[in-house]
Amino acid sequence: MAIPSIPKKEYFDRIAKFQANIRKAGLDACLVHGTESDFANVRYLSEYWPTFEQAGVFVPASGNAILLIGPESLKYAYGRSVFEQKNVMQMLNYRESAEPDYPGIPLATFADVAKAAMGKKKLKKLGLVGTAVMTLPTLKALQEQLPGVELVWADEVFRPLRWNKSENELACHRKAFKVAEKAVQAMLNEMKPGMTEFQAIGIAQREIYANGGEYEGHSLYCFGGDRTSNGISRPTYAKLKKNEIIQLNIGARVSGYSSSIGLPVWFGKLPKEQMALVEFGLRAHDYTFELMKAGADAASIAKKYTQWGIDQGWGDYMLYGPVHGLGIMETESPWIETTSNYKLKENMTYQIDTFFTGNGYGLRWETGVIVKKGGCEIMSTKFGDLKYCKLD
Amino acid sequence: MAIPSIPKKEYFDRIAKFQANIRKAGLDACLVHGTESDFANVRYLSEYWPTFEQAGVFVPASGNAILLIGPESLKYAYGRSVFEQKNVMQMLNYRESAEPDYPGIPLATFADVAKAAMGKKKLKKLGLVGTAVMTLPTLKALQEQLPGVELVWADEVFRPLRWNKSENELACHRKAFKVAEKAVQAMLNEMKPGMTEFQAIGIAQREIYANGGEYEGHSLYCFGGDRTSNGISRPTYAKLKKNEIIQLNIGARVSGYSSSIGLPVWFGKLPKEQMALVEFGLRAHDYTFELMKAGADAASIAKKYTQWGIDQGWGDYMLYGPVHGLGIMETESPWIETTSNYKLKENMTYQIDTFFTGNGYGLRWETGVIVKKGGCEIMSTKFGDLKYCKLD
Repeated sequence: MAIPSIPKKEYFDRIAKFQANIRKAGLDACLVHGTESDFANVRYLSEYWPTFEQAGVFVPASGNAILLIGPESLKYAYGRSVFEQKNVMQMLNYRESAEPDYPGIPLATFADVAKAAMGKKKLKKLGLVGTAVMTLPTLKALQEQLPGVELVWADEVFRPLRWNKSENELACHRKAFKVAEKAVQAMLNEMKPGMTEFQAIGIAQREIYANGGEYEGHSLYCFGGDRTSNGISRPTYAKLKKNEIIQLNIGARVSGYSSSIGLPVWFGKLPKEQMALVEFGLRAHDYTFELMKAGADAASIAKKYTQWGIDQGWGDYMLYGPVHGLGIMETESPWIETTSNYKLKENMTYQIDTFFTGNGYGLRWETGVIVKKGGCEIMSTKFGDLKYCKLD
Repeated sequence: MAIPSIPKKEYFDRIAKFQANIRKAGLDACLVHGTESDFANVRYLSEYWPTFEQAGVFVPASGNAILLIGPESLKYAYGRSVFEQKNVMQMLNYRESAEPDYPGIPLATFADVAKAAMGKKKLKKLGLVGTAVMTLPTLKALQEQLPGVELVWADEVFRPLRWNKSENELACHRKAFKVAEKAVQAMLNEMKPGMTEFQAIGIAQREIYANGGEYEGHSLYCFGGDRTSNGISRPTYAKLKKNEIIQLNIGARVSGYSSSIGLPVWFGKLPKEQMALVEFGLRAHDYTFELMKAGADAASIAKKYTQWGIDQGWGDYMLYGPVHGLGIMETESPWIETTSNYKLKENMTYQIDTFFTGNGYGLRWETGVIVKKGGCEIMSTKFGDLKYCKLD
């Protein structure tokens, strides 16, 4: 089983590009944050993925970046990250939320980190990246350990670097969709009325790990009835029932990169109005693919999609933008919304997330695409067809 | 399959106890934070568990608590949380890290929240709880939307409430250990040299969901060779090999509550010094159980354990405290460290986490206990025996 991955050199190329942005923004360095569930920024630069603890990467405008980890992860970080051991430092502010004291474990301060990364160069202005997930202990440590240093939110100095995917990243995504396809197929084969939603999830988990996944790409969806109307939800101990929509969204992760395949399924027969929404949803899904091409204006895509849905008579069932970015996180920047302000470029990756929410039911058709000139490559076409929906 | 859970009333009893603490601390209210991976504080008060987004609970010194969610989760939160719909509010600062704009979705500010929770009562002093995971957008929103309100870190006003488990919580934990036992047994039956670590994890995932788990209790461990020396680590695409330690730590989650069972296993034969550490580790593990009883001083347990390990000649292999709290998080407060400052009470739950790290190898024996008068109830005894370690 060949598993694509990101070569070590590519991480350092990313850091070099980030450093060019840091200099252009007039910053002396940036501090990037990642958590167990929202680790993308840190993994993108270092391959490190914390568990239990949090992590950071301190990136000076020039010179070596430093991976910052919690007190328990030193050997793990040495073995896992692409950084040399001398560029890994343990800090208390990245400890787990149980907040142990760790007597006897030597820990660094941000002053130590700045000195290690910048030597005698002065740190006056530090950009914060991953502010959406950066936590209070890290902010407090910065304020206490780097008095007088100006802290500025600097997500935009980093975030667009993650938008345009390399061939290696695309290979990981494509494989992640192949793995997700196997998981969905196994669910369609094995799901039965009376099984709990969690038991159905277990089928997908088994296949994800058996076929080359390293983890779920997002918390997996399998839920029925009223909960199919939820934009976000989680499975429960409820049993799968006949004659109602059961929503699946199954994503695998390969070498960091996510996927998700979504479709509505059912046993028996759906009420007429639910069937009509399923069919309309698939038409809307297929319509969106046509809009996705290099050079297209993101806001225009969202506006066209919304207007099209209204014109077709289903405007009341629409909740939010039809497309969001895909990368290490299954949902990442940039979204495609009516308020977006950028144009699509070749090799950006997106999830076509076609969600409609009604009164007591809803559904989502979803798959991933790679933006190309004149169109897009759909990473999984297999389940975008009504013939997969009826399970018995 | 009977799945224990927490009755709705118990959530409101928790809130009432928390409010008594808030008043005692001289605070007007507390804001509690939770994330996708570190959701315990929010779930403890509301049963709500965010995914993609973050969440909070605003708890006034008296009156109704309010669940605070991201823009996409309204129907999910209505259906899932124990709160009435009028006590659920959507806020931008809890959005996912992709940071969409969500045009057209109405959002509340903290001023709106304070008014809804407190009416005409004045908010002067607000305690922050879950500071270890609270993120910058929430802090920024507080500062901008509640000018003049004093913000104080107040984890200790809340945290000890989670220490002493109710009978319902204990039932969830016990079941979580039963589910984990099934997952471990399946791994022992099915693991083979040449299988990847991830494939072995897939066996456990399958069994967790098949037998009543709602999720993993923590990121599951199955890794071999040098990585067994890591205090924290993650599985990889490496294949299981003969004649070396493979570390398993498998935890299931039932109705929120976690478990973890850890043991070293191997195919073939271990080098003599590794076998000696495995055997010593199990003795240390068994020794720790004897120290766990209501009334015992936490620091004394850690000191006795450490001194015992040194006396036995294995001091260099010890990294940190031998026991940590168990609850919704598999690792939660309070740890048992040499610096601890409290006494164990009946119905506190802990993981006996007996970890030794050598040069190129290490191992962990682990299970959960409930503190009782005169001793402790071990929640899974099954795999605490050398007879399970050799797999072929």
